Amino acid sequence: MSRVTVSSALERAVALFADREAVVDGTTRWSYDELDRRVRSFDGSLDGFGLGKGDVVAVLAHNNAAHLVAWLGTPRSGRVLNAVNTRLSFAELQFILDDSEAKMLLVDDAFLESGRRLLAACESLEHLVHTGPGPTPDDCESFEALTTAGVGARPVEVGGDDVAGVFYTGGTTGRPKGALLSHANLMANAKHALICLGYTHRDRYLHAGPMFHLADGASTVALTWVGGTHVITPGFTPGSWVETVAAERVTRAMLVPTMITMLLGAGVPDELDISSLESVLYGASPMPQAVLAKANELLGCDWCQVYGMTEAAPIVTFMTHEDHRLGLRGDDALASSRLRSAGRPAVGVDVQIRDSDDNVVPSGQVGEIVIRGENVMLGYLHRLDETTQALPGDGWYRSGDMGYVDEGGYVFVVDRLKDMIITGGENVYSTEVENALYRHGDVQEVAVVGVPDEQWGEAVHAVVHPRPGSTVTAEDLRNHARELIAGYKVPRVVHIAAEPLPKSGAGKILKRNLREELSSE
Amino acid sequence: MSRVTVSSALERAVALFADREAVVDGTTRWSYDELDRRVRSFDGSLDGFGLGKGDVVAVLAHNNAAHLVAWLGTPRSGRVLNAVNTRLSFAELQFILDDSEAKMLLVDDAFLESGRRLLAACESLEHLVHTGPGPTPDDCESFEALTTAGVGARPVEVGGDDVAGVFYTGGTTGRPKGALLSHANLMANAKHALICLGYTHRDRYLHAGPMFHLADGASTVALTWVGGTHVITPGFTPGSWVETVAAERVTRAMLVPTMITMLLGAGVPDELDISSLESVLYGASPMPQAVLAKANELLGCDWCQVYGMTEAAPIVTFMTHEDHRLGLRGDDALASSRLRSAGRPAVGVDVQIRDSDDNVVPSGQVGEIVIRGENVMLGYLHRLDETTQALPGDGWYRSGDMGYVDEGGYVFVVDRLKDMIITGGENVYSTEVENALYRHGDVQEVAVVGVPDEQWGEAVHAVVHPRPGSTVTAEDLRNHARELIAGYKVPRVVHIAAEPLPKSGAGKILKRNLREELSSE
Repeated sequence: MSRVTVSSALERAVALFADREAVVDGTTRWSYDELDRRVRSFDGSLDGFGLGKGDVVAVLAHNNAAHLVAWLGTPRSGRVLNAVNTRLSFAELQFILDDSEAKMLLVDDAFLESGRRLLAACESLEHLVHTGPGPTPDDCESFEALTTAGVGARPVEVGGDDVAGVFYTGGTTGRPKGALLSHANLMANAKHALICLGYTHRDRYLHAGPMFHLADGASTVALTWVGGTHVITPGFTPGSWVETVAAERVTRAMLVPTMITMLLGAGVPDELDISSLESVLYGASPMPQAVLAKANELLGCDWCQVYGMTEAAPIVTFMTHEDHRLGLRGDDALASSRLRSAGRPAVGVDVQIRDSDDNVVPSGQVGEIVIRGENVMLGYLHRLDETTQALPGDGWYRSGDMGYVDEGGYVFVVDRLKDMIITGGENVYSTEVENALYRHGDVQEVAVVGVPDEQWGEAVHAVVHPRPGSTVTAEDLRNHARELIAGYKVPRVVHIAAEPLPKSGAGKILKRNLREELSSE
Repeated sequence: MSRVTVSSALERAVALFADREAVVDGTTRWSYDELDRRVRSFDGSLDGFGLGKGDVVAVLAHNNAAHLVAWLGTPRSGRVLNAVNTRLSFAELQFILDDSEAKMLLVDDAFLESGRRLLAACESLEHLVHTGPGPTPDDCESFEALTTAGVGARPVEVGGDDVAGVFYTGGTTGRPKGALLSHANLMANAKHALICLGYTHRDRYLHAGPMFHLADGASTVALTWVGGTHVITPGFTPGSWVETVAAERVTRAMLVPTMITMLLGAGVPDELDISSLESVLYGASPMPQAVLAKANELLGCDWCQVYGMTEAAPIVTFMTHEDHRLGLRGDDALASSRLRSAGRPAVGVDVQIRDSDDNVVPSGQVGEIVIRGENVMLGYLHRLDETTQALPGDGWYRSGDMGYVDEGGYVFVVDRLKDMIITGGENVYSTEVENALYRHGDVQEVAVVGVPDEQWGEAVHAVVHPRPGSTVTAEDLRNHARELIAGYKVPRVVHIAAEPLPKSGAGKILKRNLREELSSE
């Protein structure tokens, strides 16, 4: 029996669409033939650096073509991709590279200095590769050289359950954990993406959201498989986004709701023709209907939504163009209300709602969202307990998200067991922020919750009860946190509470009460 | 890790589309809820009859809802489906049921008598189930009772590489052989079908081609998965086909080229509105451009083509709507010439062309078509040698078909190593027909070849050199063959040759010469 490999996607693309545009990244334009040559050369170069099957290649860079080469080239001969969140603090980055035992790190100009510090700090890290766009410093390997050396890799048996990538996600214990995704997982997701999203070789997809994130990565292999074009911008600003859509005749894009809100604020200049845009995929959280309606007016395209998670590689549920059209029309109350849902399970992904005794609950009843499919991860790296908890062995992944399913099979995510906040498309685990704040000597009690926020979806708020006699200020605590965790995790607001925090009979802080109180302010 | 099961398709459909129409079969109309109840009950009844995991349930019937219940219900708890070709001779049917060791046989009214004879003749066969539509005779179990008993099956671990069906295909050795398709194979094909064909819950698919054949079966699980409607007619006649399309607002259908030719002959009555028809899928062989153009005018729909085989569950390559539109427009010679191809490899299926030393050949060069993917069968039942030959262990299935790939990746099938004739969508292996003719005492030498035929695609012709002194006639030989093999395999023409047949230096009959000679007549 044959084992699926991530390489199949590019192999098909180069066989069928050798001359078509594969990559647009600033002034870089590669055909599939060129992308394939670069990927093979990168793969061969990893052999040259002594990286074998299972060795980890990390990427720390703004969006660029190197991300795509790393996505496709690293797993090719069994190496493991570890694209890391560029917004993490140095301590977090170091933790992740140590945890994954990364041997090579790819950085762009912006992260060169961080890369040097990481090379010095991380024991396993041996090679620092500079992806440009500036000239390669003497103390770095040149990505350009690696991808043009033209030496193929030694043949090696790869695929199926072999690990293709380790993707870090915030941990409930306050430490990020690495979800291990296999070749089979990524290829299953790519098939699911193609069934949901229907990409073809005519599509030009804009990578504006971070390529290290699976919300964008959800489409990467799928688009390659059908021979579509990857249009890459370093990051997202409303201005550059609409300009790129117009200039590159972009047909598809992924945005998180925060970006959509920013686009609404900035508008689309009259002189720009963005009529090529057929469909925008959004994820991370549902969008308020009013925002969706305004965005629909502004961009004049179709909409689809994906709910997912790193552990599911990531697609779980999907809301179709038709769902959006019907919901936005406004004359079908049920369809409109379903815009607040996460859509319905994607073909290939089984979803159930279970109670705390692991029984499937009837529709309408809230329980934990559990997930089954070839897309579900192998487990967490070095985290046997958390793996066993998430994957107890019956084939169903316990997502930790709470939700219900309506009578039409639409999934509504109502809360997160994991106590996670989604702000600007990024996942923030309360525990992680609480741990950072607890490390300040003046903090007696702290609870971190997400508060609805028009721009960010949710904003991180902390409620702190200081030790007796302390004069600590909100600003002191924010500065303290900024040293330890990524900027987007630092509470936007720290409330100083004179009284101890409200607790349950069992002594557990009643976060739900705090959240409701802060949300109604 | 979770294992895929065929059951996932119906589970999703009933969860999301419980009230939607799942089946239309004459006056029978079932919602997905009802179909699910029937399938579960059928599954539970198999327990009751003592059929365990791995036991085989055969179906010998014209198209009906029972076929669909058997498709979805048999693999549910690990039983194995064996839908047999209704056009086979009794001897062939007996061989297949003996070979698969079928324990249960489902028959409709038309095959009741054959079923009784098979029950008497086949050692393994224990239960004869009557699917109707007439009343159930006393010596049969009632399918209606089995599917309404309402007793669920005992839970059993099923999926992945477990066998879901054994599908018989003509053998090069002259005996049919059973291709073993696993749950993973069928579900991979279903995903590939959804990516290629884009079925949604709005689709109403007409099963008019035989449901025992994977050309139709290619869509069965896929359509169920998305909650589409199965419209079933007992068989194909041009009149009933257009009437059903009109009456049931059919959107999708599968036809083999022979059926399309018949439709062209019969035409579409003015009073019938077949505008619901969005797309016709055809397979088994490419269609002459002139026929396609006429059919396009007659039906006014989109076209797509699949090339595949039982061993690949079955989709291998696919020609899109766009390919057809471009080719039919007529102003693009390359696009028009590609209508004679089999399209390009489906996403999820890797295709290579190899020479006899197993090296991949450059584009344009003819070689054997080899195939890799999660859809490729486990092997042939009880045929270790043929399995090893087809699947030598490197993950690539040797199809035995010869072809080449053009510079755009379009696959052209030029000949078949296996010496197979496709007539009216049915595969006929020359060896099988030759073996039958050799059993006639007057036959000294025989060669069976396919000759191009407007109605049947290819027609089966035999060239016989009789023993000295024999006065055997073509009609004698056709009558002899009819006793042993299915009617569609019996040569339409038997040529009596006074001279011995032309041979190669190695003494092998030069079939290619015979074929060319007969084709130019």
